Amino acid sequence: MKHFISIYDIDNLNNLVDKALSYKLSPFKDQTLGKNKTLGMIFFNPSLRTRVSTQLAARNLGMEVIVLNTSQDGWMLEMQDGVVMNGNNPEHVREAAAVMGQYFDIVGLRSFPSLKNKEDDYSEQTINQFRKYSGKPVLSLESATLHPLQSLADVITIREQWKEKRKPKVVLSWAPHIKALPQAVPNSFAQWMNTWDEIDFVIAHPKGYELDKAFSQSALIDHNQEAALQDADFVYVKNWSSVSSYGKILNSDSNWMLTTKKLLGTNNAKVMHCLPVRRNVVIADEVLDSPSSIVVQQAGNRVWAAQAVLSELLRSNCV
Amino acid sequence: MKHFISIYDIDNLNNLVDKALSYKLSPFKDQTLGKNKTLGMIFFNPSLRTRVSTQLAARNLGMEVIVLNTSQDGWMLEMQDGVVMNGNNPEHVREAAAVMGQYFDIVGLRSFPSLKNKEDDYSEQTINQFRKYSGKPVLSLESATLHPLQSLADVITIREQWKEKRKPKVVLSWAPHIKALPQAVPNSFAQWMNTWDEIDFVIAHPKGYELDKAFSQSALIDHNQEAALQDADFVYVKNWSSVSSYGKILNSDSNWMLTTKKLLGTNNAKVMHCLPVRRNVVIADEVLDSPSSIVVQQAGNRVWAAQAVLSELLRSNCV
Amino acid sequence: MKHFISIYDIDNLNNLVDKALSYKLSPFKDQTLGKNKTLGMIFFNPSLRTRVSTQLAARNLGMEVIVLNTSQDGWMLEMQDGVVMNGNNPEHVREAAAVMGQYFDIVGLRSFPSLKNKEDDYSEQTINQFRKYSGKPVLSLESATLHPLQSLADVITIREQWKEKRKPKVVLSWAPHIKALPQAVPNSFAQWMNTWDEIDFVIAHPKGYELDKAFSQSALIDHNQEAALQDADFVYVKNWSSVSSYGKILNSDSNWMLTTKKLLGTNNAKVMHCLPVRRNVVIADEVLDSPSSIVVQQAGNRVWAAQAVLSELLRSNCV
Repeated sequence: MKHFISIYDIDNLNNLVDKALSYKLSPFKDQTLGKNKTLGMIFFNPSLRTRVSTQLAARNLGMEVIVLNTSQDGWMLEMQDGVVMNGNNPEHVREAAAVMGQYFDIVGLRSFPSLKNKEDDYSEQTINQFRKYSGKPVLSLESATLHPLQSLADVITIREQWKEKRKPKVVLSWAPHIKALPQAVPNSFAQWMNTWDEIDFVIAHPKGYELDKAFSQSALIDHNQEAALQDADFVYVKNWSSVSSYGKILNSDSNWMLTTKKLLGTNNAKVMHCLPVRRNVVIADEVLDSPSSIVVQQAGNRVWAAQAVLSELLRSNCV
Repeated sequence: MKHFISIYDIDNLNNLVDKALSYKLSPFKDQTLGKNKTLGMIFFNPSLRTRVSTQLAARNLGMEVIVLNTSQDGWMLEMQDGVVMNGNNPEHVREAAAVMGQYFDIVGLRSFPSLKNKEDDYSEQTINQFRKYSGKPVLSLESATLHPLQSLADVITIREQWKEKRKPKVVLSWAPHIKALPQAVPNSFAQWMNTWDEIDFVIAHPKGYELDKAFSQSALIDHNQEAALQDADFVYVKNWSSVSSYGKILNSDSNWMLTTKKLLGTNNAKVMHCLPVRRNVVIADEVLDSPSSIVVQQAGNRVWAAQAVLSELLRSNCV
Repeated sequence: MKHFISIYDIDNLNNLVDKALSYKLSPFKDQTLGKNKTLGMIFFNPSLRTRVSTQLAARNLGMEVIVLNTSQDGWMLEMQDGVVMNGNNPEHVREAAAVMGQYFDIVGLRSFPSLKNKEDDYSEQTINQFRKYSGKPVLSLESATLHPLQSLADVITIREQWKEKRKPKVVLSWAPHIKALPQAVPNSFAQWMNTWDEIDFVIAHPKGYELDKAFSQSALIDHNQEAALQDADFVYVKNWSSVSSYGKILNSDSNWMLTTKKLLGTNNAKVMHCLPVRRNVVIADEVLDSPSSIVVQQAGNRVWAAQAVLSELLRSNCV
């Protein structure tokens, strides 16, 4: 694995999940793998779960971690080439990425979308420029359009939960929210589910919330949440803003909130969410406080996802 | 020791002080105790001394430390149950605490009072919710009403200084300040002094500054600072805002500032303060720059206090 | 080496450079030297390169590092003695420095100038007060008037590049900028070049940009950039604000920007800059993207500079 930016950086998904689950059993078995190696985590946007879980994963492998909170320090980078830099951005990504490549063995990056211009966001300029100019493996800590560490943790969680031989039905269900949110988590989840051949995948959302076809691919799409949830084994609940009316909130119908009643038609489905979750807006208390919810276990699995990925990046690039 | 939130979490105060002083002599003697254990320090409010001293203590025990500055990242948590979360708080403490419990072996928390509503502050909601939902030992890094790591350092400092057989007289003396400050340090100091049977304890403050009876208990209270200081061996100087007129400044009489002249009636008393201290408002330069002041040594002892507590938490919960 | 604040703290520059280059070859050869020692890095102003490179250097030596971002936490210190502290500054440097000295084995400090009053800035109050009151070795992470870790990295970079027997000609050339910048980097570079007897040194700048004589000393000064660059082997490009019209921008003539054409008269000179650099304002794209630029290598050498200095501070003070 040269970089970890999308599912296409992975050789074999099931092997990676096996590796993650083996770290969950024995977190410290590879404590010399990362000795004298440093992970730099550059946060252009805030982070809590990703920050902590990735740091733990790196430390479990014996790596050093250095965190740069550039959103606080105001490290604004010029991304365009050929610009006369007499504006707000004091440094060009060409120098910034090259220097980080001098310091770090693996460069982790978090960079959210602006939600103003789809073309800009979906070009993934920040992560691509660092990949181009840092000369080091780049680890996505959530980019404008994808959140692969979250998706790997999601797959791990489903694999851990599912004991039957038949394929489980996994439903990604849109839910309302008071703010316009990125599409990174649902894009990424759809990308991973479409690739993983051990599940059946359905996406439920109101009209106007179609994900970019590059990510939803051939997934079944249903505008009727109740129908989609029928016989579901896993319900992944998540809000996102519109792609076609880019970054806009088109619907705030609270009927899309997940409730106990909606779970009645499912196959005693487990409920997932990447967190943070607004209670009684996205998912009802009664669901989150019931045994159906596996959101905390899912967040815990972020550590093992990150540890498996860092382990692969170290083996491929740093030994 | 299951948690460390108040003096009631301690079995034996003198044993804990012995332990702290033994770490002061040999900081690295238990360097394997915390191996592969992680202390998470979550700061809902800023911190300098507590942040650094607790981090040093954890490292001395071989622990990893991860710091979350949520005051900067703006991690605002909903504390109330049953709320429709369509306001400013994007995450509920039930998920937040449970996830931190997935990541950390010990959860440290700093959470100041609002000073607007006594009942709210004195219910210690934040630290209690984390205790309830994290499933891990909780370490107070100063809560709304108490600062037990400071109080333990204070006891250590008095024990270190006092060589005579008779009980020393310890006076907690209110002093003026330009801002309305929490009662956490004086509440906590009073709680510890009232429990510690090796000293005699007096509180001096102007009328209207009575501490909550839960903390001042049966301590002698004197509204005449000069009388209270008579024959004192230790003077602990500290401002706090009014409890009865909750969070208000009722008095700014500079006669309550500690000066050399006021020390004349004492038994060559040592002067303590938790820092930061506003010079010539709370304590005069002449006192802080004299051998009477032990405020720097007191701040240094924060390391050994934290190390003794972390050691106990590790032994009780993580082995 | 007791402290590292200016070149006058160094015994032998060439030996220090040798040491740095030996760490570049074998970063981990002294991994026990800093065991159980802690470097505190206190940032009164933001930092990226210095923060990361110094942290890496300390870790290479086995030291612990604790970072305090006081610019975010708003740790405003009173520097004046005898003040009644009823204003904005809640803590006096006497306590602050003494307490940091209790916690850290080496105290690193970054403190920028105000650029409002030359006398204040050039008195270097912050770093001098910490030297006076911390009781520990003080490491400058860039002070109001000097940036010695940068200058040491600069010398290392020139030594690495220069293979000929004759002395290279090194030119420090002023360049335009849109903001008023400190003089710390050029002051420091001039101080080190004037001391280093293995190079010939020239400073080029427009009239009105004379550096303080304490730093420029007997260096040749040329107001004609083209003439100064003639036969140069190294061109160090850097903006600074005026010293005589203190902190002011007197000139924004884009003819002082470094271009390929200007390099024609040089001896195929290597181009240096401390970064961040505003492209096409300070240096043209065509130069930064050519093999003439060694700015990334120069930034990489910050690690080895810091490691050599920390190694010396540890050996002199902490063993």
